[in-house]
Amino acid sequence: MDWENVNDEFLQKKFEFSNFVDALDFVNRAGEICETQDHHAEFTLSWGQVIVKTWSHDVGGITDRDTKLADAIDKVY
Amino acid sequence: MDWENVNDEFLQKKFEFSNFVDALDFVNRAGEICETQDHHAEFTLSWGQVIVKTWSHDVGGITDRDTKLADAIDKVY
Repeated sequence: MDWENVNDEFLQKKFEFSNFVDALDFVNRAGEICETQDHHAEFTLSWGQVIVKTWSHDVGGITDRDTKLADAIDKVY
Repeated sequence: MDWENVNDEFLQKKFEFSNFVDALDFVNRAGEICETQDHHAEFTLSWGQVIVKTWSHDVGGITDRDTKLADAIDKVY
């Protein structure tokens, strides 16, 4: 798990791609995981890059749900 | 054109949805327009919400390419 823990507020990781379409495809694959786990990250998509942040809104910080989601998102990269 | 002009640096607009999947669908539709126009916005997707920012990297500000993209994205909302 090489996600950055930002002030115990959220986990963050930057994923890089060679174009916009590949980056968007990744958002779709990762978004499907969010739906499956019923835990929704924030995705910032731009040309060749996606930054993903995840936190648990109910506790205002990081929980096992975030590390579980992060691990699954890594697998579809 | 009800997009916010932020310091003449970029155009920004928030689009709202009733769930994550609808928001993601919008990113796909808007992303297709970016590919067609070969002008790529930045999309921040979270549950029920997408914030879109567009600027022209070559000039470091807003051009006709951004207003054209913004108009087209409005149409697929």
